[in-house]
Amino acid sequence: MQDILKKLLEEVKSGKLSIDKAMDKLKSLPYEDIDIAKIDTHRELRTSLPEVIFCQGKTIEQIILIVKKIKANKTGINRIIATRANKEIYKEVKKIAPEVVWYEQARIIASPSKNKNKTGNILVITAGTSDIPVAEEAVVIAELMGNKVNKAYDVGVAGIHRLFSIKDKLFDANVIVAVAGMEGALASIVGGLVDVPVIAVPTSIGYGASFNGLAPLLTMLNCCAPGVSVVNIDNGFGAGYLAGLINKKSK
Amino acid sequence: MQDILKKLLEEVKSGKLSIDKAMDKLKSLPYEDIDIAKIDTHRELRTSLPEVIFCQGKTIEQIILIVKKIKANKTGINRIIATRANKEIYKEVKKIAPEVVWYEQARIIASPSKNKNKTGNILVITAGTSDIPVAEEAVVIAELMGNKVNKAYDVGVAGIHRLFSIKDKLFDANVIVAVAGMEGALASIVGGLVDVPVIAVPTSIGYGASFNGLAPLLTMLNCCAPGVSVVNIDNGFGAGYLAGLINKKSK
Amino acid sequence: MQDILKKLLEEVKSGKLSIDKAMDKLKSLPYEDIDIAKIDTHRELRTSLPEVIFCQGKTIEQIILIVKKIKANKTGINRIIATRANKEIYKEVKKIAPEVVWYEQARIIASPSKNKNKTGNILVITAGTSDIPVAEEAVVIAELMGNKVNKAYDVGVAGIHRLFSIKDKLFDANVIVAVAGMEGALASIVGGLVDVPVIAVPTSIGYGASFNGLAPLLTMLNCCAPGVSVVNIDNGFGAGYLAGLINKKSK
Amino acid sequence: MQDILKKLLEEVKSGKLSIDKAMDKLKSLPYEDIDIAKIDTHRELRTSLPEVIFCQGKTIEQIILIVKKIKANKTGINRIIATRANKEIYKEVKKIAPEVVWYEQARIIASPSKNKNKTGNILVITAGTSDIPVAEEAVVIAELMGNKVNKAYDVGVAGIHRLFSIKDKLFDANVIVAVAGMEGALASIVGGLVDVPVIAVPTSIGYGASFNGLAPLLTMLNCCAPGVSVVNIDNGFGAGYLAGLINKKSK
Amino acid sequence: MQDILKKLLEEVKSGKLSIDKAMDKLKSLPYEDIDIAKIDTHRELRTSLPEVIFCQGKTIEQIILIVKKIKANKTGINRIIATRANKEIYKEVKKIAPEVVWYEQARIIASPSKNKNKTGNILVITAGTSDIPVAEEAVVIAELMGNKVNKAYDVGVAGIHRLFSIKDKLFDANVIVAVAGMEGALASIVGGLVDVPVIAVPTSIGYGASFNGLAPLLTMLNCCAPGVSVVNIDNGFGAGYLAGLINKKSK
Amino acid sequence: MQDILKKLLEEVKSGKLSIDKAMDKLKSLPYEDIDIAKIDTHRELRTSLPEVIFCQGKTIEQIILIVKKIKANKTGINRIIATRANKEIYKEVKKIAPEVVWYEQARIIASPSKNKNKTGNILVITAGTSDIPVAEEAVVIAELMGNKVNKAYDVGVAGIHRLFSIKDKLFDANVIVAVAGMEGALASIVGGLVDVPVIAVPTSIGYGASFNGLAPLLTMLNCCAPGVSVVNIDNGFGAGYLAGLINKKSK
Amino acid sequence: MQDILKKLLEEVKSGKLSIDKAMDKLKSLPYEDIDIAKIDTHRELRTSLPEVIFCQGKTIEQIILIVKKIKANKTGINRIIATRANKEIYKEVKKIAPEVVWYEQARIIASPSKNKNKTGNILVITAGTSDIPVAEEAVVIAELMGNKVNKAYDVGVAGIHRLFSIKDKLFDANVIVAVAGMEGALASIVGGLVDVPVIAVPTSIGYGASFNGLAPLLTMLNCCAPGVSVVNIDNGFGAGYLAGLINKKSK
Amino acid sequence: MQDILKKLLEEVKSGKLSIDKAMDKLKSLPYEDIDIAKIDTHRELRTSLPEVIFCQGKTIEQIILIVKKIKANKTGINRIIATRANKEIYKEVKKIAPEVVWYEQARIIASPSKNKNKTGNILVITAGTSDIPVAEEAVVIAELMGNKVNKAYDVGVAGIHRLFSIKDKLFDANVIVAVAGMEGALASIVGGLVDVPVIAVPTSIGYGASFNGLAPLLTMLNCCAPGVSVVNIDNGFGAGYLAGLINKKSK
Repeated sequence: MQDILKKLLEEVKSGKLSIDKAMDKLKSLPYEDIDIAKIDTHRELRTSLPEVIFCQGKTIEQIILIVKKIKANKTGINRIIATRANKEIYKEVKKIAPEVVWYEQARIIASPSKNKNKTGNILVITAGTSDIPVAEEAVVIAELMGNKVNKAYDVGVAGIHRLFSIKDKLFDANVIVAVAGMEGALASIVGGLVDVPVIAVPTSIGYGASFNGLAPLLTMLNCCAPGVSVVNIDNGFGAGYLAGLINKKSK
Repeated sequence: MQDILKKLLEEVKSGKLSIDKAMDKLKSLPYEDIDIAKIDTHRELRTSLPEVIFCQGKTIEQIILIVKKIKANKTGINRIIATRANKEIYKEVKKIAPEVVWYEQARIIASPSKNKNKTGNILVITAGTSDIPVAEEAVVIAELMGNKVNKAYDVGVAGIHRLFSIKDKLFDANVIVAVAGMEGALASIVGGLVDVPVIAVPTSIGYGASFNGLAPLLTMLNCCAPGVSVVNIDNGFGAGYLAGLINKKSK
Repeated sequence: MQDILKKLLEEVKSGKLSIDKAMDKLKSLPYEDIDIAKIDTHRELRTSLPEVIFCQGKTIEQIILIVKKIKANKTGINRIIATRANKEIYKEVKKIAPEVVWYEQARIIASPSKNKNKTGNILVITAGTSDIPVAEEAVVIAELMGNKVNKAYDVGVAGIHRLFSIKDKLFDANVIVAVAGMEGALASIVGGLVDVPVIAVPTSIGYGASFNGLAPLLTMLNCCAPGVSVVNIDNGFGAGYLAGLINKKSK
Repeated sequence: MQDILKKLLEEVKSGKLSIDKAMDKLKSLPYEDIDIAKIDTHRELRTSLPEVIFCQGKTIEQIILIVKKIKANKTGINRIIATRANKEIYKEVKKIAPEVVWYEQARIIASPSKNKNKTGNILVITAGTSDIPVAEEAVVIAELMGNKVNKAYDVGVAGIHRLFSIKDKLFDANVIVAVAGMEGALASIVGGLVDVPVIAVPTSIGYGASFNGLAPLLTMLNCCAPGVSVVNIDNGFGAGYLAGLINKKSK
Repeated sequence: MQDILKKLLEEVKSGKLSIDKAMDKLKSLPYEDIDIAKIDTHRELRTSLPEVIFCQGKTIEQIILIVKKIKANKTGINRIIATRANKEIYKEVKKIAPEVVWYEQARIIASPSKNKNKTGNILVITAGTSDIPVAEEAVVIAELMGNKVNKAYDVGVAGIHRLFSIKDKLFDANVIVAVAGMEGALASIVGGLVDVPVIAVPTSIGYGASFNGLAPLLTMLNCCAPGVSVVNIDNGFGAGYLAGLINKKSK
Repeated sequence: MQDILKKLLEEVKSGKLSIDKAMDKLKSLPYEDIDIAKIDTHRELRTSLPEVIFCQGKTIEQIILIVKKIKANKTGINRIIATRANKEIYKEVKKIAPEVVWYEQARIIASPSKNKNKTGNILVITAGTSDIPVAEEAVVIAELMGNKVNKAYDVGVAGIHRLFSIKDKLFDANVIVAVAGMEGALASIVGGLVDVPVIAVPTSIGYGASFNGLAPLLTMLNCCAPGVSVVNIDNGFGAGYLAGLINKKSK
Repeated sequence: MQDILKKLLEEVKSGKLSIDKAMDKLKSLPYEDIDIAKIDTHRELRTSLPEVIFCQGKTIEQIILIVKKIKANKTGINRIIATRANKEIYKEVKKIAPEVVWYEQARIIASPSKNKNKTGNILVITAGTSDIPVAEEAVVIAELMGNKVNKAYDVGVAGIHRLFSIKDKLFDANVIVAVAGMEGALASIVGGLVDVPVIAVPTSIGYGASFNGLAPLLTMLNCCAPGVSVVNIDNGFGAGYLAGLINKKSK
Repeated sequence: MQDILKKLLEEVKSGKLSIDKAMDKLKSLPYEDIDIAKIDTHRELRTSLPEVIFCQGKTIEQIILIVKKIKANKTGINRIIATRANKEIYKEVKKIAPEVVWYEQARIIASPSKNKNKTGNILVITAGTSDIPVAEEAVVIAELMGNKVNKAYDVGVAGIHRLFSIKDKLFDANVIVAVAGMEGALASIVGGLVDVPVIAVPTSIGYGASFNGLAPLLTMLNCCAPGVSVVNIDNGFGAGYLAGLINKKSK
């Protein structure tokens, strides 16, 4: 945005741009306003991902309105990605954006990525079978950004040999996403084994004193192994995106 | 009430009022007792708003009983305002108070305001699209009190330029209501930009470590920017009412 | 800041300002950078209060550095206000800013206000004797902004007649700051009696299940009476500042 | 039980009772064992209330089994009282205990009390209309114990005059049950006005930072007014029973 | 206060009292205002206890000021009771009120009770030795009100036979105060054995997951045995006062 | 595993095993990988229990896949145990594993134990009737491991004589599982009576300040009686398994 | 106690014992009452440990009083064990019980165990160096009970190879005590490796989101590996005692 | 470790290594055992950092013992890094490791890095002046690993222009560490501006409803901007290390 501002000032100086228009540009540039939402239509240029629609808490009407606006965008940037989406939403979106694909486990609706050359090496692992949906959200997001993703599920610490059997995968990754509910100890063990960034995702899987994910969240935050950081409970999207950022920049 | 008490004492002294009647008056004056509720029939005289029916937790039968009593009030003060009302309640109330209007997003049933001259300038903003219902509750309440209200939705801090594009609105307002879930940082930013009171409304929008609104609540309470105060999670009504109080008294 | 930006663009256009200088100005304008802190030297122009030094958590060395920079400011805006300050800090500051006054109960160090014409009417009340330091912080801040402040201490709800004896003060105020620890019910009662904004300040006074102020904080947030908003536990500064903002704008 | 033990020892000494039988008696005396429950069939002799069936968490089959056992009790003590009971349970119980009455608001099923002489004076009050079901649970239990009960609902502190209009009732009671959700300040005010025991019942009525009744619970526990004690959230039964105990013993 | 109000109205009617004086009386009657505190000088008439000074959180200067005012009271009601008082406070108070006694364990300073005829029967028990200070606070307060108090300390449930050895005391009491930290199970057991009110006092004695008394507080609130109510953590004063109220009214 | 590693190294040395095959063995030995889960097929050899399927949070498809894999296991170890299973799951599993039995209260599906010689003596007790499902989970698991289990339900502390009537059972057990919701005091009492390990299981039975089992959890953790340890809220499985381990090793 | 009761009844029957004396015996038997404490003088007969003095929260005077009483016990059972004891307490106790030893790290004062034949095999491990004091409390208690104890400290999961290097110790133990602060994952890993009971002890070692041990407590409670149970935060005593109970009964 | 294992197996096969020695090697390889701690002497080979001594909770004796062992290490890897170290510790360490430097603000003792070629670009920013110590811990750790670090302190959101003035630094960084207490909104704003990983560090700076850092922790976890992950409260070390990992691998 620094550059945009500098260029703007230069155009004003050279007379190419009137002051009023400069003011307007500053306000309207990076998004479209549809009253219920301001859509960041340029986001994909800056990052590898377009603005993502977080469906939870939005009405179907609102989602459709946003999808329509993105589809109508004249810049040619009109890829759809919607998370926390159920089948009902998918059916409605499909009607106006027939290209979209439905990732059921990940609960993601997305225009297929045109980028076929996936690069780097992200590893997404889960402690249990029930953690898979959160992990899949991370996997799909990272792949949509053009990253190459490996997975290994149900390798939790209650059977430590399961984790060791995937050592090759662990030591080959540029960055690891560790998804775990219950006591969430997976991230600690992995963090002690590898020397790459580990993104820990606590899940709400568990019962009783898990307090909907508080237990693994605290476990991961208190992790003795350095190199581990944490995202919100069940936030597969955030973990996948961050892993993508790190992987893309990795040598 | 100070005045009422003084006048009462004077009437007793002058003999206009017997002691027993004075005692009775003190008890019965400002409300009507319908056993399940004591309705403050004089409230609109003192404030710009009649007593508001908070529907959540009440049975339809109780709500209808209260509405009937208000409608039957001989003082001429029989405007209906009911919050947290769903469609089913609306249909029942409509039968006995056909003048009422249904504000769907705000979940408010209300007799239309006769006051057409809305004054002042309240700005209601939200961080996201999902926060709109809470914001609308604030908007409708403030408008029913006779305040002029501006709005700007989906201007959360994840895309700070969205917020800056509404700078004119921000700097023109007498008081701002900032509605945000997730991490609730909106109030902090706005509080740092403006020099008018900011009423922060945390919402239960979010998941995981938002703990049903605890996260934005704490964020807003710890706001470094002075001039910010906080109401209960999802309490659009309280924010709208308080904004109305401040706006009405503003020069 | 909108105006500053517009003026800048105009000066660039007219050639008065080179692009590089405009860029610099945008960066350096509203504060002075002393490495450990960025001091907002223009704040008093925009609000009625200069940038306030929050002493808690800062070393004496850091505080003195900031005070020196403010004193050296060539704009003539060099009023000192420091909160959460103990006697030791006061003695050190006094050496380099001999004009400052020490408000012991309020724990505030301040250059005396030149404004002798205090206006409006703020009422600050406390539930108990132990809540007075927090209340005094609010009182001193509001007065330093040029507001007229009334006080009434130890009027908590355990003896409701104490509260009623200050009815005149309650009904005359433009805005009320209600400071209470323990169960914090004071704000609810006052909020039900008056029709002006009530700013509730929970304090950490109490023991056991008060959990360092959590109990009065929740009480105040759940207040049934509308017109009440809440600031952080023990945040007398924030309450005083907000009350000042509202009072100053009141008709 | 002291007496029972002494009598037992005496009967053993005098030879009336063999040692083995004494052992058996000690084990089986005060209840009947039906495998899923041990029913205290003698409870009504010791207190004014038979063993009460807490329905929440029990299957209908379990409840019916317990009712049948009580009905079959040969001691003649076979009065039924069941709390937290819905209509479905009532219908099933009615089939095998046709004498029972259904207190809908209080969610209580009970054999009618034969005691027509209700004595003493308990006052049950609520802050709002939505708190009534919890209050009714207290009222019905206290009445089933033979206590005289007054009530006054919707007298919360947001309109303090409502509370004052019931002063006669407040000052006449031997013991007061104060039921309140939201911020729960009612108990504090009442505790400051009267000199009889106040039993505070927080309710889960509220939203947001009420955290399902945590807010009024903490308010009531931190009550500055002495003479107030607290029972569990929504525990109308406990409050009614305790009020009954106190009232029955009152001069 | 009802009576005071009625009498006032009558005096106004009969001309004995002018309206302005009536207004003044209403305000000033039941307390003396010393700026930092409003002292309820008539309290002892209404209850068996004068206004009690809660020392925690007050400066010695404030405490001395309040004591002086009480001593100077012309009504003859000038008994001193101060709780949460350490030795330093005691020494200072002793200088101006030489009649006071120092209850070290209970941390209470008090003018000796003139009432020598202690009546009724309150039992105060503790689970452990460390809970004794809180229990002593209850004992001293109840005795100062003129109640007869029995005690039994260190009878916690880890050795259930200890509790049973005090059965006589348990069954003779009109009301029982059960003081316990750690897991706080004492109140549950006692509540299941007796048929008189049990006032449960959680203490902050414990460590780790006691969370400063949260554990026994929750235990006591969830007590299955009816007849048990709870006061704040470490609130021996409140428990003693409430037990006194109940005992005094007991047949 | 120490032994397996040593044997492996020896086979490699003697040439029986190639290095690559040794590497493979280390990875694949103790489980089968079916992508969504890694099944520990050898678990029953090491412990008395096969790998248990925790159904909660898994889809029926996932459960069926796991069951199929276990059934197909060529080692002959293909006993099925699935916990937190509802009827729908049972019906589906029955189709492919017709030998399984449905323990409705315990919510367990299991191949019947071939071991008819149950040994030792575990006692499982509950405070109330509603705690039975959690207790039954413990009972069934312990029995499936070949342990002899006694039970005594509804012996909570509100009627302490109920507990004493089962003294014989209490003193005969090698290990006791104490299951309780509400205030959870049962474990404390039992822990004070016996000299064998007590495994305390808090349940989510209760309401209000039980906070879904937090209250009994804290009670049990703060238990003054030594010899008591705690498992997760509602974790009947864990308690039954641990009791089994201890009982099996008992002299 | 069943036996004692039976014998008592027999003596009464045979006339050996009068009823009054039987009553007295029932009350006074198992402890000595010194007003501030009831000392269980027979405890060592029933368990392998005498009554233990928990010093925290007791005054030195109280501790000395208890020690004196134990020393004066005529039964010959006068072994001293005091936990959470600092040096000051040790010096005072030493004066009247010169045989006692001071275990500095474990903070235990104890008469030396006469039992030289330590049996069985308990393993006590810690995650970090800072957890050692809690572990030592467990070690000393278990040894005082006559158990053989192994230790391995600083084997936390951040360096998993450290844990594996003590595999022999892990697989040889009858019962393992796992002491860990921070994220507390040690218990989960160990629980997944061994088939003996694991007693998990969370410690308050850590900072920030460890919340004084809440994080490892929740981790351990949510442990996926079966066979793990948990004691209170920092409760080395409880863990050592329980491990002793299990070890002593192990085949 | 995969490689080490493979090589070991090969050496065993070829006869270079006996089985017993292989077993020993596996156990003793990567650390030295000094009873109170297991020191990972090879860590620096694997990462850019030697094993770090976390001083908090350790005695000076323990720290010195560990330092001595590292100094005595014959591999030549004997660089000292100790965090959370006060001056007293520094003085003692200096005596036996005279090369160490004392980073006062960061509370770190370290052997100076020999690596003079710092590479990449990490930016460390703080919201306030009081957050600097935590930030400095991150800065020093990252620099000791050989990273180039920029800093910008006191750029919190209460004065958003402060943040914008460091835009160049923000857009040039490979990874950003955002340190903030109070409401912690800094990470959200920065996360919305940049497209590189942001590591958010909540601090315990604040008061009242900050609950020792819980408020900024929750804010950061709920951050709407993707690309942000969180470490423990005040965990400057972890953030610095993770930033170092990411920066070192960045193109």
